[in-house]
Amino acid sequence: MRNIKLTIAYDGTDFHGFQRQPELRTVQGTLEETLQVVLKQPVSIIGSGRTDAGVHAKGQVVNFHTASGIPIEKWPIVLNTRLPNDLVVQTAVEVPEDFHARFYAQGKVYRYLIDRSPYPDVFTRHFSYHFPYPICVEPMVEAARHLEGRHDFTSFCAANTPVEDKVRRLHAVTLTEQGHLLTIECRGEGFLYNMVRIIAGTLLDVGRGKIAPDEIPDILKACDRTRAGVTAPPHGLTMWEVLYNSDKP
Amino acid sequence: MRNIKLTIAYDGTDFHGFQRQPELRTVQGTLEETLQVVLKQPVSIIGSGRTDAGVHAKGQVVNFHTASGIPIEKWPIVLNTRLPNDLVVQTAVEVPEDFHARFYAQGKVYRYLIDRSPYPDVFTRHFSYHFPYPICVEPMVEAARHLEGRHDFTSFCAANTPVEDKVRRLHAVTLTEQGHLLTIECRGEGFLYNMVRIIAGTLLDVGRGKIAPDEIPDILKACDRTRAGVTAPPHGLTMWEVLYNSDKP
Repeated sequence: MRNIKLTIAYDGTDFHGFQRQPELRTVQGTLEETLQVVLKQPVSIIGSGRTDAGVHAKGQVVNFHTASGIPIEKWPIVLNTRLPNDLVVQTAVEVPEDFHARFYAQGKVYRYLIDRSPYPDVFTRHFSYHFPYPICVEPMVEAARHLEGRHDFTSFCAANTPVEDKVRRLHAVTLTEQGHLLTIECRGEGFLYNMVRIIAGTLLDVGRGKIAPDEIPDILKACDRTRAGVTAPPHGLTMWEVLYNSDKP
Repeated sequence: MRNIKLTIAYDGTDFHGFQRQPELRTVQGTLEETLQVVLKQPVSIIGSGRTDAGVHAKGQVVNFHTASGIPIEKWPIVLNTRLPNDLVVQTAVEVPEDFHARFYAQGKVYRYLIDRSPYPDVFTRHFSYHFPYPICVEPMVEAARHLEGRHDFTSFCAANTPVEDKVRRLHAVTLTEQGHLLTIECRGEGFLYNMVRIIAGTLLDVGRGKIAPDEIPDILKACDRTRAGVTAPPHGLTMWEVLYNSDKP
Protein backbone atom coordinates (compact mmCIF):
# COMPACT_ATOMS: atom_id res chain seq x y z
CA MET A 1 0.00 0.00 0.00
CA ARG A 2 1.16 3.51 -0.82
CA ASN A 3 0.80 6.34 1.68
CA ILE A 4 -0.15 9.67 0.07
CA LYS A 5 0.19 13.01 1.82
CA LEU A 6 -1.91 15.87 0.48
CA THR A 7 -1.69 19.55 1.32
CA ILE A 8 -5.14 21.05 0.91
CA ALA A 9 -6.65 24.54 1.06
CA TYR A 10 -10.29 25.32 1.70
CA ASP A 11 -12.66 28.20 2.12
CA GLY A 12 -14.47 27.05 5.26
CA THR A 13 -17.51 29.29 4.71
CA ASP A 14 -19.76 26.58 3.33
CA PHE A 15 -18.35 23.58 5.21
CA HIS A 16 -19.59 22.26 8.53
CA GLY A 17 -15.99 21.96 9.62
CA PHE A 18 -13.34 19.41 8.73
CA GLN A 19 -14.61 16.25 10.37
CA ARG A 20 -16.97 13.90 8.54
CA GLN A 21 -20.56 14.07 9.81
CA PRO A 22 -23.56 12.25 8.40
CA GLU A 23 -25.74 14.40 6.11
CA LEU A 24 -23.50 17.46 6.45
CA ARG A 25 -21.07 18.97 3.96
CA THR A 26 -17.64 18.66 5.57
CA VAL A 27 -14.07 18.84 4.24
CA GLN A 28 -13.25 15.25 5.18
CA GLY A 29 -16.55 13.96 3.79
CA THR A 30 -16.15 15.84 0.50
CA LEU A 31 -12.56 14.67 0.02
CA GLU A 32 -13.38 11.06 0.92
CA GLU A 33 -16.33 11.00 -1.47
CA THR A 34 -14.13 12.31 -4.28
CA LEU A 35 -11.44 9.72 -3.50
CA GLN A 36 -14.09 7.01 -3.55
CA VAL A 37 -15.22 8.14 -7.02
CA VAL A 38 -11.62 8.05 -8.27
CA LEU A 39 -10.58 4.81 -6.58
CA LYS A 40 -13.94 3.02 -6.76
CA GLN A 41 -13.69 1.96 -3.13
CA PRO A 42 -14.14 3.66 0.26
CA VAL A 43 -11.10 5.55 1.57
CA SER A 44 -10.50 7.05 5.01
CA ILE A 45 -8.30 10.09 5.26
CA ILE A 46 -6.37 11.20 8.33
CA GLY A 47 -6.20 14.95 8.96
CA SER A 48 -3.48 16.78 10.91
CA GLY A 49 -6.31 18.08 13.06
CA ARG A 50 -9.89 19.25 12.78
CA THR A 51 -11.06 22.72 11.98
CA ASP A 52 -14.41 24.05 13.14
CA ALA A 53 -17.31 25.14 10.95
CA GLY A 54 -16.35 28.38 9.19
CA VAL A 55 -12.60 28.01 9.78
CA HIS A 56 -10.43 28.02 6.65
CA ALA A 57 -7.17 26.29 5.72
CA LYS A 58 -4.32 27.29 3.48
CA GLY A 59 -2.08 24.34 4.32
CA GLN A 60 -4.08 21.60 6.02
CA VAL A 61 -2.39 18.19 5.66
CA VAL A 62 -4.08 14.81 5.26
CA ASN A 63 -2.86 11.35 4.34
CA PHE A 64 -4.47 8.15 3.11
CA HIS A 65 -3.40 4.67 2.06
CA THR A 66 -4.14 3.26 -1.37
CA ALA A 67 -3.05 0.52 -3.74
CA SER A 68 -3.77 2.80 -6.71
CA GLY A 69 -1.03 3.20 -9.30
CA ILE A 70 -1.93 6.80 -10.20
CA PRO A 71 1.43 8.61 -10.54
CA ILE A 72 2.02 10.88 -7.56
CA GLU A 73 2.26 14.07 -9.66
CA LYS A 74 -1.21 13.37 -11.14
CA TRP A 75 -3.05 13.31 -7.82
CA PRO A 76 -3.73 17.08 -7.50
CA ILE A 77 -5.21 17.39 -10.98
CA VAL A 78 -7.16 14.12 -10.72
CA LEU A 79 -8.77 15.30 -7.49
CA ASN A 80 -9.13 19.02 -8.32
CA THR A 81 -11.08 18.34 -11.51
CA ARG A 82 -13.66 16.56 -9.33
CA LEU A 83 -13.57 18.66 -6.14
CA PRO A 84 -15.76 21.75 -5.63
CA ASN A 85 -14.08 25.16 -6.03
CA ASP A 86 -13.84 25.80 -2.30
CA LEU A 87 -11.58 22.79 -1.66
CA VAL A 88 -8.28 22.53 -3.54
CA VAL A 89 -5.46 20.00 -3.37
CA GLN A 90 -2.22 21.99 -3.55
CA THR A 91 0.39 19.23 -3.46
CA ALA A 92 0.67 15.44 -3.22
CA VAL A 93 3.74 13.52 -2.10
CA GLU A 94 4.32 9.86 -1.36
CA VAL A 95 5.46 9.30 2.21
CA PRO A 96 6.74 6.31 4.23
CA GLU A 97 4.06 3.85 5.27
CA ASP A 98 4.12 4.92 8.93
CA PHE A 99 3.56 8.63 8.23
CA HIS A 100 0.44 9.85 10.04
CA ALA A 101 -0.75 13.43 9.38
CA ARG A 102 -1.75 13.94 13.03
CA PHE A 103 0.81 11.93 15.03
CA TYR A 104 3.78 13.13 12.98
CA ALA A 105 2.81 16.81 13.13
CA GLN A 106 5.47 18.74 15.07
CA GLY A 107 3.48 21.91 15.22
CA LYS A 108 1.02 24.18 13.49
CA VAL A 109 0.72 27.75 12.32
CA TYR A 110 -2.63 29.55 12.49
CA ARG A 111 -3.47 33.05 11.35
CA TYR A 112 -6.34 35.13 12.64
CA LEU A 113 -7.24 38.05 10.36
CA ILE A 114 -8.91 41.22 11.66
CA ASP A 115 -10.43 43.84 9.36
CA ARG A 116 -10.21 47.19 11.14
CA SER A 117 -11.86 49.31 8.44
CA PRO A 118 -14.98 51.29 9.43
CA TYR A 119 -17.17 49.16 7.13
CA PRO A 120 -16.42 45.58 6.09
CA ASP A 121 -13.94 45.02 3.27
CA VAL A 122 -15.99 43.12 0.65
CA PHE A 123 -12.86 41.35 -0.62
CA THR A 124 -11.79 39.79 2.67
CA ARG A 125 -15.18 39.57 4.39
CA HIS A 126 -15.30 35.77 4.35
CA PHE A 127 -11.79 35.42 5.78
CA SER A 128 -11.57 38.20 8.32
CA TYR A 129 -13.32 39.35 11.49
CA HIS A 130 -14.62 42.87 11.00
CA PHE A 131 -13.68 44.82 14.12
CA PRO A 132 -14.21 48.56 13.54
CA TYR A 133 -13.66 49.65 17.15
CA PRO A 134 -10.55 51.65 18.02
CA ILE A 135 -7.70 49.42 19.16
CA CYS A 136 -4.11 50.06 20.12
CA VAL A 137 -1.78 47.44 18.61
CA GLU A 138 1.28 48.07 20.77
CA PRO A 139 -0.14 46.63 24.03
CA MET A 140 -1.42 43.65 22.00
CA VAL A 141 2.16 42.94 20.90
CA GLU A 142 3.28 43.18 24.53
CA ALA A 143 0.50 40.82 25.65
CA ALA A 144 1.42 38.38 22.89
CA ARG A 145 4.96 38.10 24.34
CA HIS A 146 3.48 36.80 27.61
CA LEU A 147 1.68 34.01 25.76
CA GLU A 148 4.83 32.70 24.11
CA GLY A 149 6.60 29.75 25.69
CA ARG A 150 5.37 26.73 27.63
CA HIS A 151 2.21 27.36 29.65
CA ASP A 152 -0.91 25.68 30.96
CA PHE A 153 -3.43 27.16 28.53
CA THR A 154 -6.58 26.10 30.45
CA SER A 155 -7.73 29.74 30.47
CA PHE A 156 -7.40 29.77 26.67
CA CYS A 157 -9.28 26.54 26.00
CA ALA A 158 -13.01 25.99 25.57
CA ALA A 159 -14.44 24.97 28.96
CA ASN A 160 -15.26 21.28 29.44
CA THR A 161 -12.77 20.13 26.81
CA PRO A 162 -12.01 16.47 27.63
CA VAL A 163 -8.22 16.85 27.41
CA GLU A 164 -6.25 16.33 30.60
CA ASP A 165 -2.93 17.94 29.80
CA LYS A 166 -3.50 21.55 28.77
CA VAL A 167 0.17 22.49 28.76
CA ARG A 168 1.31 23.62 25.31
CA ARG A 169 4.30 25.47 23.90
CA LEU A 170 3.69 28.53 21.74
CA HIS A 171 6.81 29.32 19.71
CA ALA A 172 5.63 32.75 18.59
CA VAL A 173 2.59 35.01 18.60
CA THR A 174 3.22 37.65 15.95
CA LEU A 175 1.12 40.66 14.97
CA THR A 176 1.42 42.16 11.50
CA GLU A 177 -0.38 45.23 10.18
CA GLN A 178 -1.04 45.77 6.50
CA GLY A 179 -3.33 48.71 5.83
CA HIS A 180 -6.60 48.07 7.63
CA LEU A 181 -5.81 44.37 8.13
CA LEU A 182 -4.24 43.04 11.31
CA THR A 183 -2.94 39.45 11.36
CA ILE A 184 -2.31 37.50 14.56
CA GLU A 185 -0.09 34.52 13.75
CA CYS A 186 0.25 31.75 16.33
CA ARG A 187 3.01 29.20 15.84
CA GLY A 188 3.17 26.37 18.31
CA GLU A 189 3.72 22.70 19.09
CA GLY A 190 0.05 22.06 19.61
CA PHE A 191 -3.21 23.85 20.18
CA LEU A 192 -6.21 23.26 22.41
CA TYR A 193 -9.81 23.55 21.30
CA ASN A 194 -10.61 27.21 20.37
CA MET A 195 -7.19 28.29 21.64
CA VAL A 196 -6.30 30.64 18.76
CA ARG A 197 -9.77 32.17 18.70
CA ILE A 198 -9.62 32.82 22.46
CA ILE A 199 -6.12 34.31 22.06
CA ALA A 200 -7.48 36.60 19.31
CA GLY A 201 -10.48 37.61 21.46
CA THR A 202 -8.21 38.28 24.44
CA LEU A 203 -5.69 40.31 22.43
CA LEU A 204 -8.56 42.41 21.06
CA ASP A 205 -9.62 43.08 24.68
CA VAL A 206 -6.05 44.19 25.33
CA GLY A 207 -6.19 46.41 22.24
CA ARG A 208 -9.35 48.04 23.55
CA GLY A 209 -7.82 48.60 26.98
CA LYS A 210 -10.09 46.15 28.82
CA ILE A 211 -7.16 43.91 29.79
CA ALA A 212 -3.64 45.18 30.52
CA PRO A 213 -0.75 43.31 28.88
CA ASP A 214 0.77 42.41 32.25
CA GLU A 215 -2.46 40.74 33.36
CA ILE A 216 -1.80 37.92 30.88
CA PRO A 217 0.52 35.96 33.23
CA ASP A 218 -2.21 36.06 35.92
CA ILE A 219 -4.86 34.95 33.45
CA LEU A 220 -2.64 32.01 32.46
CA LYS A 221 -1.95 31.09 36.11
CA ALA A 222 -5.65 31.23 37.00
CA CYS A 223 -6.41 28.23 34.74
CA ASP A 224 -9.92 29.61 34.42
CA ARG A 225 -11.57 30.08 31.05
CA THR A 226 -13.71 32.95 32.34
CA ARG A 227 -10.60 35.09 32.94
CA ALA A 228 -9.59 35.33 29.25
CA GLY A 229 -11.45 37.22 26.52
CA VAL A 230 -14.27 35.97 24.32
CA THR A 231 -13.81 33.40 21.58
CA ALA A 232 -13.38 35.40 18.37
CA PRO A 233 -15.62 34.19 15.50
CA PRO A 234 -14.47 31.27 13.33
CA HIS A 235 -14.39 32.98 9.94
CA GLY A 236 -11.31 35.06 10.86
CA LEU A 237 -9.25 31.90 11.45
CA THR A 238 -7.13 30.03 8.91
CA MET A 239 -5.00 26.94 9.54
CA TRP A 240 -1.95 28.24 7.73
CA GLU A 241 0.60 25.44 7.87
CA VAL A 242 1.30 22.12 9.53
CA LEU A 243 4.92 21.58 10.57
CA TYR A 244 6.67 18.22 10.17
CA ASN A 245 10.24 17.17 10.79
CA SER A 246 12.11 17.49 7.54
CA ASP A 247 13.15 13.83 7.85
CA LYS A 248 9.47 12.86 8.14
CA PRO A 249 8.08 14.66 5.07
CA MET B 1 -31.54 69.79 -2.81
CA ARG B 2 -28.35 68.26 -1.42
CA ASN B 3 -25.94 66.39 -3.66
CA ILE B 4 -24.41 63.33 -1.97
CA LYS B 5 -21.31 61.56 -3.28
CA LEU B 6 -20.81 57.97 -2.14
CA THR B 7 -17.74 55.80 -2.56
CA ILE B 8 -18.89 52.18 -2.73
CA ALA B 9 -17.21 48.77 -2.87
CA TYR B 10 -18.79 45.61 -4.18
CA ASP B 11 -18.07 41.98 -4.82
CA GLY B 12 -19.40 41.69 -8.37
CA THR B 13 -19.77 37.90 -8.26
CA ASP B 14 -23.50 37.88 -7.64
CA PHE B 15 -24.45 41.08 -9.47
CA HIS B 16 -25.51 41.36 -13.10
CA GLY B 17 -23.22 44.35 -13.43
CA PHE B 18 -23.62 47.92 -12.25
CA GLN B 19 -26.43 49.22 -14.42
CA ARG B 20 -30.06 48.83 -13.35
CA GLN B 21 -31.93 46.17 -15.34
CA PRO B 22 -35.48 44.97 -14.79
CA GLU B 23 -35.76 41.71 -12.83
CA LEU B 24 -31.98 41.41 -12.36
CA ARG B 25 -29.87 41.99 -9.28
CA THR B 26 -27.58 44.91 -10.14
CA VAL B 27 -25.48 47.31 -8.09
CA GLN B 28 -27.43 50.38 -9.18
CA GLY B 29 -30.77 48.63 -8.65
CA THR B 30 -29.82 47.38 -5.18
CA LEU B 31 -28.52 50.77 -4.07
CA GLU B 32 -31.54 52.64 -5.47
CA GLU B 33 -33.96 50.23 -3.78
CA THR B 34 -32.18 50.74 -0.45
CA LEU B 35 -32.24 54.53 -0.89
CA GLN B 36 -35.94 54.33 -1.66
CA VAL B 37 -36.57 52.42 1.59
CA VAL B 38 -34.63 55.03 3.56
CA LEU B 39 -36.02 58.11 1.81
CA LYS B 40 -39.51 56.77 1.13
CA GLN B 41 -39.37 58.01 -2.47
CA PRO B 42 -37.66 56.89 -5.69
CA VAL B 43 -34.06 58.03 -6.13
CA SER B 44 -31.85 57.82 -9.22
CA ILE B 45 -28.12 57.47 -8.71
CA ILE B 46 -25.42 58.50 -11.19
CA GLY B 47 -22.40 56.20 -11.40
CA SER B 48 -18.91 57.21 -12.53
CA GLY B 49 -19.25 54.44 -15.10
CA ARG B 50 -20.70 50.98 -15.50
CA THR B 51 -19.02 47.73 -14.60
CA ASP B 52 -19.92 44.47 -16.31
CA ALA B 53 -21.39 41.39 -14.68
CA GLY B 54 -18.76 39.78 -12.46
CA VAL B 55 -16.54 42.88 -12.26
CA HIS B 56 -15.82 44.20 -8.77
CA ALA B 57 -15.24 47.66 -7.35
CA LYS B 58 -13.18 48.93 -4.46
CA GLY B 59 -13.79 52.62 -5.09
CA GLN B 60 -16.74 53.12 -7.44
CA VAL B 61 -18.27 56.57 -7.05
CA VAL B 62 -21.94 57.51 -7.35
CA ASN B 63 -23.95 60.62 -6.54
CA PHE B 64 -27.61 61.43 -5.99
CA HIS B 65 -29.75 64.40 -5.08
CA THR B 66 -32.00 64.45 -2.05
CA ALA B 67 -33.85 66.83 0.24
CA SER B 68 -33.24 64.51 3.19
CA GLY B 69 -31.79 66.03 6.33
CA ILE B 70 -29.85 62.90 7.38
CA PRO B 71 -26.44 64.19 8.60
CA ILE B 72 -23.73 63.42 6.03
CA GLU B 73 -21.67 61.28 8.43
CA LYS B 74 -24.68 59.00 9.08
CA TRP B 75 -25.18 57.99 5.45
CA PRO B 76 -22.74 55.05 5.34
CA ILE B 77 -24.18 53.40 8.45
CA VAL B 78 -27.80 54.12 7.47
CA LEU B 79 -27.25 52.44 4.09
CA ASN B 80 -24.88 49.66 5.21
CA THR B 81 -27.30 48.35 7.81
CA ARG B 82 -29.79 47.80 4.97
CA LEU B 83 -27.51 46.79 2.10
CA PRO B 84 -26.47 43.17 1.43
CA ASN B 85 -22.95 42.13 2.50
CA ASP B 86 -21.51 42.26 -1.01
CA LEU B 87 -22.20 45.98 -1.43
CA VAL B 88 -20.71 48.44 1.06
CA VAL B 89 -20.78 52.22 1.26
CA GLN B 90 -17.29 53.31 2.32
CA THR B 91 -17.68 57.08 2.49
CA ALA B 92 -20.28 59.80 1.97
CA VAL B 93 -19.55 63.47 1.35
CA GLU B 94 -21.73 66.40 0.41
CA VAL B 95 -20.68 67.96 -2.89
CA PRO B 96 -21.67 71.08 -4.89
CA GLU B 97 -24.98 70.81 -6.69
CA ASP B 98 -23.35 70.51 -10.13
CA PHE B 99 -21.10 67.56 -9.22
CA HIS B 100 -21.77 64.61 -11.52
CA ALA B 101 -20.00 61.29 -10.81
CA ARG B 102 -19.47 60.59 -14.51
CA PHE B 103 -18.92 64.01 -16.10
CA TYR B 104 -16.60 65.22 -13.35
CA ALA B 105 -14.42 62.08 -13.34
CA GLN B 106 -10.90 62.99 -14.48
CA GLY B 107 -9.77 59.41 -14.75
CA LYS B 108 -10.01 55.91 -13.35
CA VAL B 109 -7.78 53.23 -11.94
CA TYR B 110 -8.52 49.56 -12.65
CA ARG B 111 -6.68 46.51 -11.37
CA TYR B 112 -6.67 43.13 -13.04
CA LEU B 113 -5.55 40.32 -10.72
CA ILE B 114 -3.97 37.11 -12.03
CA ASP B 115 -3.48 34.02 -9.86
CA ARG B 116 -0.45 32.15 -11.22
CA SER B 117 -0.49 29.25 -8.75
CA PRO B 118 -0.78 25.72 -10.19
CA TYR B 119 -4.24 25.27 -8.62
CA PRO B 120 -6.65 28.10 -7.80
CA ASP B 121 -6.10 30.03 -4.58
CA VAL B 122 -9.35 29.50 -2.65
CA PHE B 123 -8.96 32.87 -0.92
CA THR B 124 -8.75 35.03 -4.05
CA ARG B 125 -10.69 32.82 -6.46
CA HIS B 126 -13.62 35.24 -6.80
CA PHE B 127 -11.35 38.22 -7.49
CA SER B 128 -8.60 36.79 -9.66
CA TYR B 129 -8.18 35.03 -12.99
CA HIS B 130 -6.49 31.68 -12.46
CA PHE B 131 -3.78 31.40 -15.10
CA PRO B 132 -1.45 28.48 -14.28
CA TYR B 133 0.48 28.53 -17.56
CA PRO B 134 4.13 29.62 -17.54
CA ILE B 135 4.50 33.31 -18.27
CA CYS B 136 7.45 35.67 -18.38
CA VAL B 137 6.65 38.98 -16.68
CA GLU B 138 9.52 41.07 -18.07
CA PRO B 139 8.22 41.26 -21.67
CA MET B 140 4.77 42.07 -20.26
CA VAL B 141 6.26 45.10 -18.50
CA GLU B 142 7.93 46.13 -21.78
CA ALA B 143 4.65 45.72 -23.69
CA ALA B 144 2.82 47.75 -21.04
CA ARG B 145 5.17 50.71 -21.73
CA HIS B 146 3.95 50.78 -25.34
CA LEU B 147 0.34 51.11 -24.18
CA GLU B 148 1.02 54.16 -22.05
CA GLY B 149 0.28 57.57 -23.52
CA ARG B 150 -2.35 58.83 -25.93
CA HIS B 151 -3.45 56.28 -28.51
CA ASP B 152 -6.40 55.19 -30.61
CA PHE B 153 -7.40 52.09 -28.65
CA THR B 154 -9.78 50.64 -31.27
CA SER B 155 -7.78 47.37 -31.20
CA PHE B 156 -8.37 47.23 -27.44
CA CYS B 157 -12.09 47.91 -27.50
CA ALA B 158 -14.95 45.44 -27.90
CA ALA B 159 -15.90 45.37 -31.60
CA ASN B 160 -19.07 47.26 -32.61
CA THR B 161 -18.91 49.61 -29.65
CA PRO B 162 -20.96 52.66 -30.62
CA VAL B 163 -18.35 55.22 -29.57
CA GLU B 164 -16.81 57.36 -32.28
CA ASP B 165 -13.69 58.67 -30.67
CA LYS B 166 -11.57 55.79 -29.43
CA VAL B 167 -8.56 57.89 -28.54
CA ARG B 168 -7.74 57.66 -24.86
CA ARG B 169 -4.77 58.53 -22.66
CA LEU B 170 -3.32 55.85 -20.39
CA HIS B 171 -1.19 57.45 -17.68
CA ALA B 172 0.38 54.20 -16.51
CA VAL B 173 0.15 50.44 -16.94
CA THR B 174 1.95 48.91 -13.97
CA LEU B 175 2.65 45.26 -13.18
CA THR B 176 3.22 44.17 -9.59
CA GLU B 177 4.09 40.66 -8.39
CA GLN B 178 3.31 39.46 -4.89
CA GLY B 179 3.92 35.75 -4.46
CA HIS B 180 1.73 33.92 -6.96
CA LEU B 181 -0.40 37.00 -7.62
CA LEU B 182 0.27 39.35 -10.51
CA THR B 183 -1.57 42.68 -10.66
CA ILE B 184 -1.94 44.76 -13.81
CA GLU B 185 -2.94 48.30 -12.85
CA CYS B 186 -4.24 50.63 -15.55
CA ARG B 187 -4.51 54.31 -14.73
CA GLY B 188 -5.99 56.54 -17.38
CA GLU B 189 -8.19 59.44 -18.37
CA GLY B 190 -10.89 57.20 -19.73
CA PHE B 191 -11.51 53.64 -20.79
CA LEU B 192 -13.35 52.00 -23.66
CA TYR B 193 -15.67 49.01 -23.32
CA ASN B 194 -13.65 45.92 -22.23
CA MET B 195 -10.40 47.88 -22.63
CA VAL B 196 -8.69 46.73 -19.43
CA ARG B 197 -9.76 43.11 -19.95
CA ILE B 198 -8.38 43.17 -23.52
CA ILE B 199 -5.15 44.75 -22.24
CA ALA B 200 -4.90 41.96 -19.64
CA GLY B 201 -5.57 39.26 -22.24
CA THR B 202 -3.00 40.79 -24.60
CA LEU B 203 -0.33 41.15 -21.91
CA LEU B 204 -0.86 37.48 -20.98
CA ASP B 205 -0.27 36.60 -24.66
CA VAL B 206 2.96 38.60 -24.43
CA GLY B 207 3.87 36.73 -21.25
CA ARG B 208 3.37 33.42 -23.04
CA GLY B 209 5.48 34.54 -26.00
CA LYS B 210 2.60 34.62 -28.50
CA ILE B 211 2.99 38.38 -29.03
CA ALA B 212 6.31 40.23 -28.87
CA PRO B 213 6.41 43.48 -26.83
CA ASP B 214 7.41 45.53 -29.88
CA GLU B 215 4.34 44.32 -31.80
CA ILE B 216 2.15 46.45 -29.54
CA PRO B 217 2.65 49.69 -31.52
CA ASP B 218 1.58 47.86 -34.70
CA ILE B 219 -1.46 46.37 -32.96
CA LEU B 220 -2.45 49.87 -31.82
CA LYS B 221 -1.92 51.33 -35.31
CA ALA B 222 -3.96 48.58 -36.95
CA CYS B 223 -7.17 49.77 -35.20
CA ASP B 224 -8.41 46.21 -35.51
CA ARG B 225 -9.83 44.34 -32.52
CA THR B 226 -8.77 40.97 -33.95
CA ARG B 227 -5.09 41.94 -33.67
CA ALA B 228 -5.05 42.19 -29.86
CA GLY B 229 -5.40 39.28 -27.43
CA VAL B 230 -8.58 37.79 -26.00
CA THR B 231 -10.79 39.56 -23.48
CA ALA B 232 -9.70 38.25 -20.07
CA PRO B 233 -12.63 37.10 -17.88
CA PRO B 234 -14.54 39.69 -15.81
CA HIS B 235 -13.95 38.29 -12.33
CA GLY B 236 -10.25 39.31 -12.36
CA LEU B 237 -11.17 42.98 -12.81
CA THR B 238 -11.75 45.55 -10.07
CA MET B 239 -12.59 49.23 -10.53
CA TRP B 240 -10.07 50.47 -8.01
CA GLU B 241 -10.52 54.23 -7.86
CA VAL B 242 -12.19 57.11 -9.66
CA LEU B 243 -10.09 60.26 -9.95
CA TYR B 244 -11.58 63.74 -9.52
CA ASN B 245 -9.98 67.14 -9.45
CA SER B 246 -9.22 67.98 -5.86
CA ASP B 247 -11.18 71.23 -6.22
CA LYS B 248 -14.21 69.18 -7.38
CA PRO B 249 -14.43 66.66 -4.52
